[in-house]
Amino acid sequence: MFFASDNGGPAAPEVMDAMMRANEGTAMPYGADPIMDRARAQIREVFQAPEAEVYLVATGTAANSLALATLVQPWQTIYCHRHAHIEADECGAPEFYTGGSKLTLIDGADGKMPAAALETAISETGAVGVHGVQKGALSITNATESGTVYSPAEVAELSGIAKVHSVPTHMDGARFANALVRLGCTPAELTWKAGVDILSFGGTKNGLLGVEAVILFNPDHAWEFELRRKRGGHLFSKHRFLSAQMEAYLTDGLWLDLARKANAAADRLAAGILQIPGASLMHPVEANAVFASWPRKGHRAAQGAGAKYYHWPFDQSLEGPDDEIISARLVCNWATSDADIDQFLQLISD
Amino acid sequence: MFFASDNGGPAAPEVMDAMMRANEGTAMPYGADPIMDRARAQIREVFQAPEAEVYLVATGTAANSLALATLVQPWQTIYCHRHAHIEADECGAPEFYTGGSKLTLIDGADGKMPAAALETAISETGAVGVHGVQKGALSITNATESGTVYSPAEVAELSGIAKVHSVPTHMDGARFANALVRLGCTPAELTWKAGVDILSFGGTKNGLLGVEAVILFNPDHAWEFELRRKRGGHLFSKHRFLSAQMEAYLTDGLWLDLARKANAAADRLAAGILQIPGASLMHPVEANAVFASWPRKGHRAAQGAGAKYYHWPFDQSLEGPDDEIISARLVCNWATSDADIDQFLQLISD
Amino acid sequence: MFFASDNGGPAAPEVMDAMMRANEGTAMPYGADPIMDRARAQIREVFQAPEAEVYLVATGTAANSLALATLVQPWQTIYCHRHAHIEADECGAPEFYTGGSKLTLIDGADGKMPAAALETAISETGAVGVHGVQKGALSITNATESGTVYSPAEVAELSGIAKVHSVPTHMDGARFANALVRLGCTPAELTWKAGVDILSFGGTKNGLLGVEAVILFNPDHAWEFELRRKRGGHLFSKHRFLSAQMEAYLTDGLWLDLARKANAAADRLAAGILQIPGASLMHPVEANAVFASWPRKGHRAAQGAGAKYYHWPFDQSLEGPDDEIISARLVCNWATSDADIDQFLQLISD
Amino acid sequence: MFFASDNGGPAAPEVMDAMMRANEGTAMPYGADPIMDRARAQIREVFQAPEAEVYLVATGTAANSLALATLVQPWQTIYCHRHAHIEADECGAPEFYTGGSKLTLIDGADGKMPAAALETAISETGAVGVHGVQKGALSITNATESGTVYSPAEVAELSGIAKVHSVPTHMDGARFANALVRLGCTPAELTWKAGVDILSFGGTKNGLLGVEAVILFNPDHAWEFELRRKRGGHLFSKHRFLSAQMEAYLTDGLWLDLARKANAAADRLAAGILQIPGASLMHPVEANAVFASWPRKGHRAAQGAGAKYYHWPFDQSLEGPDDEIISARLVCNWATSDADIDQFLQLISD
Repeated sequence: MFFASDNGGPAAPEVMDAMMRANEGTAMPYGADPIMDRARAQIREVFQAPEAEVYLVATGTAANSLALATLVQPWQTIYCHRHAHIEADECGAPEFYTGGSKLTLIDGADGKMPAAALETAISETGAVGVHGVQKGALSITNATESGTVYSPAEVAELSGIAKVHSVPTHMDGARFANALVRLGCTPAELTWKAGVDILSFGGTKNGLLGVEAVILFNPDHAWEFELRRKRGGHLFSKHRFLSAQMEAYLTDGLWLDLARKANAAADRLAAGILQIPGASLMHPVEANAVFASWPRKGHRAAQGAGAKYYHWPFDQSLEGPDDEIISARLVCNWATSDADIDQFLQLISD
Repeated sequence: MFFASDNGGPAAPEVMDAMMRANEGTAMPYGADPIMDRARAQIREVFQAPEAEVYLVATGTAANSLALATLVQPWQTIYCHRHAHIEADECGAPEFYTGGSKLTLIDGADGKMPAAALETAISETGAVGVHGVQKGALSITNATESGTVYSPAEVAELSGIAKVHSVPTHMDGARFANALVRLGCTPAELTWKAGVDILSFGGTKNGLLGVEAVILFNPDHAWEFELRRKRGGHLFSKHRFLSAQMEAYLTDGLWLDLARKANAAADRLAAGILQIPGASLMHPVEANAVFASWPRKGHRAAQGAGAKYYHWPFDQSLEGPDDEIISARLVCNWATSDADIDQFLQLISD
Repeated sequence: MFFASDNGGPAAPEVMDAMMRANEGTAMPYGADPIMDRARAQIREVFQAPEAEVYLVATGTAANSLALATLVQPWQTIYCHRHAHIEADECGAPEFYTGGSKLTLIDGADGKMPAAALETAISETGAVGVHGVQKGALSITNATESGTVYSPAEVAELSGIAKVHSVPTHMDGARFANALVRLGCTPAELTWKAGVDILSFGGTKNGLLGVEAVILFNPDHAWEFELRRKRGGHLFSKHRFLSAQMEAYLTDGLWLDLARKANAAADRLAAGILQIPGASLMHPVEANAVFASWPRKGHRAAQGAGAKYYHWPFDQSLEGPDDEIISARLVCNWATSDADIDQFLQLISD
Repeated sequence: MFFASDNGGPAAPEVMDAMMRANEGTAMPYGADPIMDRARAQIREVFQAPEAEVYLVATGTAANSLALATLVQPWQTIYCHRHAHIEADECGAPEFYTGGSKLTLIDGADGKMPAAALETAISETGAVGVHGVQKGALSITNATESGTVYSPAEVAELSGIAKVHSVPTHMDGARFANALVRLGCTPAELTWKAGVDILSFGGTKNGLLGVEAVILFNPDHAWEFELRRKRGGHLFSKHRFLSAQMEAYLTDGLWLDLARKANAAADRLAAGILQIPGASLMHPVEANAVFASWPRKGHRAAQGAGAKYYHWPFDQSLEGPDDEIISARLVCNWATSDADIDQFLQLISD
């Protein structure tokens, strides 16, 4: 009963097999391995983007920060949701990698930026000329930190507003696969066709050991990105072990299958929770996370039996009246079993 | 016949097995996995340093840069050999992580800093008060970039000079194991007993997929290091896959066995090269790298047969008189076979 | 009729005289001039702070940024009002000087941070441990950007909240004199006795050519500050010309007289505006700035006659119905004459 | 007898007069004052550069660092002489402003970079691809830190080498006027006609209170420079006091007259020193500084009588045999009097 995060789950067997195969013999380091050539070709095909440049790193924070640093100058600001990972969960990595850019925080329900709020934020930037920071980049998280998704049309609306102001668009796709399979669109439709310039294409939360691809749909800044990656200590010498993960991920649609499993687990979990008297969802369940509330006694029972998850917000206590409602974040991964879910539901329902 | 770098070799089977075992079930992320607890305990025991704090990252550049950033202020300088990896091969990562520290470059034969040169460099720093940068940290690479080693006494002499000036000592131990087994001393003798404050303890070049430990013998700045690691994007969510590598590395002395194999391969290679008329060594062979020179025709033969290695310096051409001497760097790894070496020697000798 | 900013006014004659006197003969550079010794002693006496360290720079942005960089680490956040100069008017200088700290923005009426909002903001910082930025420093602007002031008790309340969390307090006193003379307290009462650790003590807006003192009530980080100042390019070689301004400023209470004149001008202006039908104040007038609203026709008349000031917010147009209310910011300086004010009032009243 | 530095001398009376005149009435801040319009026009005319953009700052360190930051990326290196001010006397300000660029130090006699050494340094940069820093900018100091000058032909040779590698050229002209009047060429000939892209045009050491102009002969990066200046805290609100200095400096050739006076003083000083038995010059005297050696007893006499200057290197002691030779740096400024020089010569000659 592990729902603390999707990064607590295992890597997929197909990925582990690929790691073993990649370990044969010698290979040129730093991305000059033949597996990377194949993985790059796969990504270009999957995204219908033959010109795109593709780089691998091992953490989502590295992917996001390097991507943003390539898009903005230190004296510019990045527009993102107040709860975006780049704002709340990266210890200021974007500020570090960009050389001190600001993040302009936009509020919105269910983890999503309303178009009007983005328009206002961008329009107001630069009103005091040289005295204030300048318009930089837009960063959209999809799926969001609240477990919801932006449709291609919604992405296009936001990136379109940005584009009018010459502001490029980054997508934090740590859970891109989860969003994609929910939406049923193509990778191209959810990214460059919707105005995304750079994608952090997540793998770690969806069955890899630790690989994210950064996809530059416009390769103009590719060499700059490579230098930033190296300078940040994110260029791997034994790169074949990253390449192998990405190749396995994209082979035979494994990445989509894994995401479908995680999403289905979240759906099952949410449906079960809603059967509990007094329970409710805090956000629609559109990816692999469930934000839900139910009576304290259920929390006590589950946690007493070893279930792992976070109260959301954190500071709600197990101490107090049985029937008081406590809210939580529950994240499923590709390996979350029906048995685990059902045991958990049983515990919180009694 | 792959001698381009030790990072082109495979991971050890014991390490791959550990990766597979680590993939069972769920685990708390970000270093809170039980394997990390065991690996930390192993390192403390191996280094006789029960107070040391230990953190894992995946690249040597990350290990070095984060360690140095923890030791120096932006307005201070780092003393290192002119050919140190942190100067020559990290694209300015130390400058990036420290916020713009200088590197004061010290010349010396065989990749080693002479004590007198270090003393002069440190003494001269700060002579113009606030107008110049200040004394920062010493960084010693062991084994060196020239394939030589510093003995515990030599390390102690350098760190002692630094200490007089309140300058702490970092050791870049990307090839620490190779130095250690050559010297036959204990890990403690080569590090904290010789005045080293922080060690980048390499694993990637010696049989891991990609893990380096940063060992803070003085844990005062441990929390700062953790924040810097996260902010740099080097804190892994599925951390157990780093932990597992390190645990396997230290179990039953695997790390020492692997280093012995690589060193022995270099010895065999060097001995064979010296049989060639006109051949010579550029540096003593004290770790797993051979810097040697031999006639051009031997280079042509070897490279024609697919041997991989770098001319050293790079800009020497295969075009020219047969008997002209060309120099090269040849790096062995734990898996370099005698057969490969002998084939190579045969080719360059004919 | 210049109300665009207090930085558009002239320097006081006493200050210009001091500049002329300082130009005699030679002087040791970089703050080693005897005038600086006297100015430092004056500040220590005025602030009843014999241990304080005092440094001069030439711009408020330099003073604030260097002070904050001395107080916070790159991975920490600075708490300030959303309209603080450090957030809105310094093009990200705090982020640049700190190496990428965040600014946590606090909303509040009349440019002032409510204590409860500060408490919430600080308490929430660090809830996600290493994943989020850490508690850094509090920055209070006094007088505020809205022309209001914090009393010593209000400052003490805010700094007290901060102190509970080990968060030090910076005061942006670009208009410190204006606040002080309004409050009628001592400099010590408004600063270190109220918990302020570092003060940006403004002079430029109050009759100097361009000098701000940074006063470190706790001198522990004095040498770090000196290095940061030099490294930022803010250590003046012909420093005597900064020293001379500060000495003149503090001699015979000139600084207080100048501030009283500016405040009195603002009072006169505000009182006059309130006589206009439909006019109102946006904020209480507690320093030398008036934020007021009156009918558009008055704006047209004044600007047609050459009056200089900013609509507040900027985007209000002179085009439109005569009687529509337009708001503005009017800033007085020590040299603003009654004649100018009365002419202006006449124009906007007709 | 003040020869410690040219920054210890007074400002020229014409400049002080201009400051007084500039203090009349109100003026728009931040460079929007009419005096700046005139000063900019003067510079464009003096340099025959009608397209150039011109910005004022108050320190040489600010001018150099902002100029270099505009020319290089953080992962690039700056080529300069080992004794350049940007390397030795700015506490790492270039590293701070550029975000961590390296400085590649070039040795050469008399403070000048030999063309061949520059060619080698640039050619070697980037040999290891993404692993090493990249080619950035060339910075030439003229007059040099050793009191010598580069001719237009020498500047053109260096900048030409750089240009072949797409490396732009910065000139640190803290003593530009001193070089120019010695060479007898035009400002254009010594700068853009010789391949200089950005000039730090010094005033502070040559009779101003504290103003340096940054001249961008290619205005493409002008807006970036403005943002960097503001973000660095170097945009002055009461900018008219900088403008006024620069206008006075350029009016009626004042700047050239002041430099001629300082150079003539250095010539007189050098000629006198060479009359002393055992005395010699360390470098040719081509600007306003004299690097010379003479017996210790003369140093004792001069310093005993209050003469101010630095031993060069610093660590030579007044204690020791009378006839031992001690070397020194003596810097003249526009106000250095013949009487002072002659008194000094008398003291060191006896």
